[in-house]
Amino acid sequence: MRSMLKVSLGICVLAGMLGMSGRLAMAQATPKTGEQAVRSVLEEQVADWNNGDIPAFMKGYWKSDGTEFVTTAGIFRGWQNVMDRYLRTYPDHATMGQLTFSDLEIHVLCADAAYVMGHWKLDRQAGQIAGVFTLIFRKFPDGWKIINDHTSQYSAAAEAKKP
Amino acid sequence: MRSMLKVSLGICVLAGMLGMSGRLAMAQATPKTGEQAVRSVLEEQVADWNNGDIPAFMKGYWKSDGTEFVTTAGIFRGWQNVMDRYLRTYPDHATMGQLTFSDLEIHVLCADAAYVMGHWKLDRQAGQIAGVFTLIFRKFPDGWKIINDHTSQYSAAAEAKKP
Repeated sequence: MRSMLKVSLGICVLAGMLGMSGRLAMAQATPKTGEQAVRSVLEEQVADWNNGDIPAFMKGYWKSDGTEFVTTAGIFRGWQNVMDRYLRTYPDHATMGQLTFSDLEIHVLCADAAYVMGHWKLDRQAGQIAGVFTLIFRKFPDGWKIINDHTSQYSAAAEAKKP
Repeated sequence: MRSMLKVSLGICVLAGMLGMSGRLAMAQATPKTGEQAVRSVLEEQVADWNNGDIPAFMKGYWKSDGTEFVTTAGIFRGWQNVMDRYLRTYPDHATMGQLTFSDLEIHVLCADAAYVMGHWKLDRQAGQIAGVFTLIFRKFPDGWKIINDHTSQYSAAAEAKKP
């Protein structure tokens, strides 16, 4: 009887410990908010760009023919076309330069949609270029992805007006 | 007793008629889908612009300090600033010209958010200018309104590439 009690107590202690570690694990794995998840995607994109890795950078975009990239040159449609354009425009690490995003404003619209407005700049040996973007994100089973990217480069006139 | 029956029948007929007219009224006032409502806002904006009426055109934007207008010249914040910029950039009907939106792609993201990608052009005596926009809409108690407008004008290089 006494050994039974010991075994039961042992099981209780073990269960308690498991329960506690389970709760700890849950606390560690608290799902990110939409805003945090979107911010992480952008931080990863910057790191991948600055590693000269356009295919990794492209993980931030929805891998679909429906993905849209809007610039003053027009509209590029489809994940593959967006990647091809990046590879064509930035053929090597020197051309890619160092990317910085700043003043990110992340607006979660609903459980699975958000938009971001922010500034970008590229520091390159050939000189700095910069501009603004608005990105529309949707949440997919594999995470938040950009479905529409409208990127503008500051015009020379806007640059000249800078303090 | 018979008069009671007549009164009851009369009430039933009247209630039936009211019910029918109520249903007809409901059918006539079937709420627009998000896509239809957003399209109506844009159609009204085009009509107001082409009447030379910037304050009416501005009804399509969220009347808030949070409204954002993004261009190659930077970010303009707030409904009043957006209107002031329009009034400054387009001081008269001749400068405003005739606005056309085309190839509108309206994507409803959720019950109260949508985005639109489309082309715009302005036909003016001074020549045509054109470009692309992405608009983010939210549904408010007084209807769908633009909360973020990112408008790009085609660059000279893009224009030159046109067929």
